[in-house]
Formats: sequence, C-alpha cells, structure tokens
Amino acid sequence: MLYTKHLFICTNQRPEGSRVSCGEGHGLSLVAAFKKLIKDKQLNTEIRAQKAGCLEACELGPSVAVYPEGVFYGNVQLADVEEIVTEHLENGRVVERLVMDFDKLRALKK
Amino acid sequence: MLYTKHLFICTNQRPEGSRVSCGEGHGLSLVAAFKKLIKDKQLNTEIRAQKAGCLEACELGPSVAVYPEGVFYGNVQLADVEEIVTEHLENGRVVERLVMDFDKLRALKK
Repeated sequence: MLYTKHLFICTNQRPEGSRVSCGEGHGLSLVAAFKKLIKDKQLNTEIRAQKAGCLEACELGPSVAVYPEGVFYGNVQLADVEEIVTEHLENGRVVERLVMDFDKLRALKK
Repeated sequence: MLYTKHLFICTNQRPEGSRVSCGEGHGLSLVAAFKKLIKDKQLNTEIRAQKAGCLEACELGPSVAVYPEGVFYGNVQLADVEEIVTEHLENGRVVERLVMDFDKLRALKK
C-alpha cells in the first residue's frame, strides 16, 4: 500500500434545488481540516486525506471514505475531524457513532 | 463495503511549467471511459469509478487507485481501460504491467 490510510472526502456540489449533495464548501473545509491535523501530527507520510468527487452516498453526507478498510462516515462535521484522526487514523478504532449505515443508504437511494 | 471495487482516477491539473500532473482532460476522459464500460457490463451496483483530486503519485501518472486492495496503476491510457475492467475488476487479476512501482515513486519524489 502507498498509504496505510487513504481518506476521500466528497466535495461534490449539485445545483440548488436538485438532489442533496455534500457541498463543495463544506467538503473543502473538511479536506483542509483533515490535511492540517494529519500534518500537525506528522502522520502525513503514511496517511493521505484528499478531495474526491461524488462518493454516491450523498443522502447521508457529508461523506468521507476511509480505505483500505472501506469505512464510510456520514454527516461529518468539522467538529468530528479530530475524533476521526485521533481515534481511527492514529489508534485504529472506528468512530462508530459516525459510521454510515449502508442499508439505510440503499433504502434512501431507491 | 459499499463497493467491492472503488476506483479513484486523478483529475488534478497543475499550471503549465510547474510539477507534472495527471491532467484534468485526460483524467476526465479516463473517468468517462471507466464509468461507461462498468455500466455497459452492468457492474455498476458493485463497482464505482470516480474522479479524485491529486493521489500524490503524479510522477508516474496518469494515476488510478483501486481499493480496497490499494493497487495503483500508473501511466494509464484510454487504451488500458478495457484490460483493467475485464482483468482486474471482473476477474480479480491485477494488470501487472501497469502496476505502479512505489519504490520508484518515492525515489522520484525525493
């Protein structure tokens, strides 16, 4: 693996009035916050956080995917960044309260 | 996992004359080609291909990351899309000739 953890943060913005989206502004703020904390903690040779297009999990967004484990976090706010970095990325403990419910997502997308 | 295979295709474009980049135009053409073939083969409920920002593998790009396995393909051309989809995504056989050499990448980035 190039990275032990690779985070993809949705920055997709749809036009107003169309289907819900994670939002470019919020997404880019999340990207910046993840990048800064990962760098401040000197985790940035092993861990990368970056922007991504639509993860197709808009209905439960703002969405962040963490690979290789394939955990998706939903409704991620700036206030959640520290917990995700410290708990999950540093200590390997998934932040259960933010984990996206894929069954719920699939039901919403139908 | 939400997807059995999740492809992230770099569409990062840097200004001319700066560090090499995968290129927005080429990246977006790759995204479109992967999406079309995945849909044509009706693999799109299990497999997602999408655009991403810089994967930090520019020097050996255009770059495509495949998770959860964490395989990165380098120097990916439109003519390579069918082989990656058929061999890797459908049949689980990594396309070795395109696999990015992480040691070489790290040496180039120094």
